Amino acid sequence: MAYHPLDERSVAAYIRGRPEMAKVFPGGSPLAVREVGDGNLNLVFIVESAGGGGSAVLKQALPYLRVAGDSWPLTRERARFEAAALRQQGSLAPGRVPLVYDYDEEMSALLIEYLGSHEIMRRPLVARTRFPLFVEHISDFLARVLFFTSDLALSGVEKKALQAQFINPHLCKIQEDFVFSNPYMESPENRWNPLLDAEVRAIRADAPLKVAIAEVKESYMTHAQALLHSDLHTGSIMVNASDTRVIDPEFAFFGPMGYDLGALVANLVINCLSHFAHTPDPAERRPFQEYLLETAAGVWESFARKFEGLWIEAASGDLMPRGYWDFPGGAEAFAVFRQKYLRGVFSDLVGNAGCKILRRMMGIVSVWDITSIGDFQRRALPERLAIRIGRRWLLERGRISSIGDLLGIVREEARGSEEFS
Amino acid sequence: MAYHPLDERSVAAYIRGRPEMAKVFPGGSPLAVREVGDGNLNLVFIVESAGGGGSAVLKQALPYLRVAGDSWPLTRERARFEAAALRQQGSLAPGRVPLVYDYDEEMSALLIEYLGSHEIMRRPLVARTRFPLFVEHISDFLARVLFFTSDLALSGVEKKALQAQFINPHLCKIQEDFVFSNPYMESPENRWNPLLDAEVRAIRADAPLKVAIAEVKESYMTHAQALLHSDLHTGSIMVNASDTRVIDPEFAFFGPMGYDLGALVANLVINCLSHFAHTPDPAERRPFQEYLLETAAGVWESFARKFEGLWIEAASGDLMPRGYWDFPGGAEAFAVFRQKYLRGVFSDLVGNAGCKILRRMMGIVSVWDITSIGDFQRRALPERLAIRIGRRWLLERGRISSIGDLLGIVREEARGSEEFS
Repeated sequence: MAYHPLDERSVAAYIRGRPEMAKVFPGGSPLAVREVGDGNLNLVFIVESAGGGGSAVLKQALPYLRVAGDSWPLTRERARFEAAALRQQGSLAPGRVPLVYDYDEEMSALLIEYLGSHEIMRRPLVARTRFPLFVEHISDFLARVLFFTSDLALSGVEKKALQAQFINPHLCKIQEDFVFSNPYMESPENRWNPLLDAEVRAIRADAPLKVAIAEVKESYMTHAQALLHSDLHTGSIMVNASDTRVIDPEFAFFGPMGYDLGALVANLVINCLSHFAHTPDPAERRPFQEYLLETAAGVWESFARKFEGLWIEAASGDLMPRGYWDFPGGAEAFAVFRQKYLRGVFSDLVGNAGCKILRRMMGIVSVWDITSIGDFQRRALPERLAIRIGRRWLLERGRISSIGDLLGIVREEARGSEEFS
Repeated sequence: MAYHPLDERSVAAYIRGRPEMAKVFPGGSPLAVREVGDGNLNLVFIVESAGGGGSAVLKQALPYLRVAGDSWPLTRERARFEAAALRQQGSLAPGRVPLVYDYDEEMSALLIEYLGSHEIMRRPLVARTRFPLFVEHISDFLARVLFFTSDLALSGVEKKALQAQFINPHLCKIQEDFVFSNPYMESPENRWNPLLDAEVRAIRADAPLKVAIAEVKESYMTHAQALLHSDLHTGSIMVNASDTRVIDPEFAFFGPMGYDLGALVANLVINCLSHFAHTPDPAERRPFQEYLLETAAGVWESFARKFEGLWIEAASGDLMPRGYWDFPGGAEAFAVFRQKYLRGVFSDLVGNAGCKILRRMMGIVSVWDITSIGDFQRRALPERLAIRIGRRWLLERGRISSIGDLLGIVREEARGSEEFS
């Protein structure tokens, strides 16, 4: 079938016409279809059998970037990357991503598991909902996917074969531009709170900061360490009280592990700051902000512990063969190497988290945590804090040696702002 | 034509049977063919028309690693990588590589320019021949190929398209094993001067050194900075008084620039040390050793100057777009970024040069500079020096901040050995 964008009326017939998709809905009851896409690149339909006989999400790539109309043409290959990444992640971290039922290359469409009892994480976090299993689940996902796609687990030949499948130039270009360059320079798509004009101008002319961002971008563009999700913010995570799923991995490619970790930490901190506007009562606000910071700390700490555990237990990659550490003192040397490696990942986390915060304040897309604060005046407080924190993370990343240091900067900046809240 | 290894008798008919190859030898005179391969992976034939009507080299990949007999099976795809790399390098650094006349995928054979008036650089360096244009030529090659295949010159999309063509898993695996792992552990193919047993044992159990080598290997395996030659020792360079050509780029892939630079510097230093045996008279030896060290310094300094010049003049890559540096103080910030970037390349040079020296003393293949010293006792002096120097480069690489520092360590160690020479 030649590519054409589907709509609510054409989805049911399309599904019935593909056996792999049709069999998700046994019984032949009519299919109820509703479009729910709030992304910028794709059509998303929830499909449910009226008779209760099955449900799924049909996701189709558009040939242009929706937020900017037709003016940013895109290739549709991201549907292929999304299907391949979901399958890869699902095999390495079972239960942490939606199941893939079918992928149609020509239509750039994939049919995946419908997560009807889950919510996109940003929204309940704004409503101060806690997810006690989240750290456990997401650190499993990160540790397993990143470890098992790295040179620590794979032979050089296996890793490069996988890497070749995830050379993803057009989607990488979006992150390269919109995370690491355009927000910090004159570019027509940039959007920001007009009350932040002075802050945005200052960032664009902050020479040491611009150098730091360029260094982090270099690493993003060249450091092919493991298969990243590459858009792992709290809008790409679906949660409920008992489950956590990572969705939307179309940006997947081989990059620095710290990019995924940094995206998640940055978005938890943005949510934390947004409560200065969402939750005016300090007695309600402070414990939840603390919960979010502890969650961010837990993400790193659990990731690092699990990742190192896998390394000790399951290392079979070319970096390094077991026999390399087989000498008197070798066990200790191996431990030093693991620590240095993880220190490098953490350092990447810090730099990327800084960029991920800043770009949301002055680039093409903000986040719902912030945009849902209607009043520009109230919104400016968390935004100013976020800019100060992102800037410090980037400039001080050489000295930030623990997650405690990193979040200490958040606490320091937030304390100074308590009087305004 | 189904793959079969050629021999001196079958080459002429093979060439006459392919129009693109045949036209290199106009006139139809008989072809004189002699096999000259001293490599480990390939058959190499020099083909000359008896009537003076043309000459060329025919190079054919073998399906196994020759040095170890049939026991290391290899894919023949390296012929494709060699042809693609020669074409890419030739277009970016014209005149610095042999011309490619034709490439036959099925036979894994390529016909390239015959450089009859050139020598493999190692040998004349052992004979104390100077090449006054070498630094100029090789720094052109390195600066142009590395710059124009990096994110500084290419858009992210262009770079990744090129990178996808040079995912080269099997040849990378050879370097990963034989440069970064096996020489420093028990492995049956390792060879060393038996007088160096103690030194080899010490290296294998040197915990900080093993960690340092693992870190350099991590960078080799993941840091996709530019299209490397990836085997740039003085056996891959052909020279005469007026010309310099880089050959044998079958290992080409996207890796850290410092790997190529480090390989070259390491091999110049090995040659320098080999003169403690080759050239017993200090009055003859010292000036030539000094020439080699100055050559090594010149390689880095000219490379860095030309690379930065290209960056200032021809930057059109996504790292960064010009407008990113367009602010008051932006020119200075851009200069800081260039310096930091080049400092990173230099740091990679140091670590890789250390590995490149050590592996030649205790791995699968030594170098002619050393093996041509027949007497194990005399050979042990440069070898011991080389091991000391390679080890110090790796352990001190965090403190070695200039090529002067790097070569200072060579001078220091060599001075200490003058009494033995």
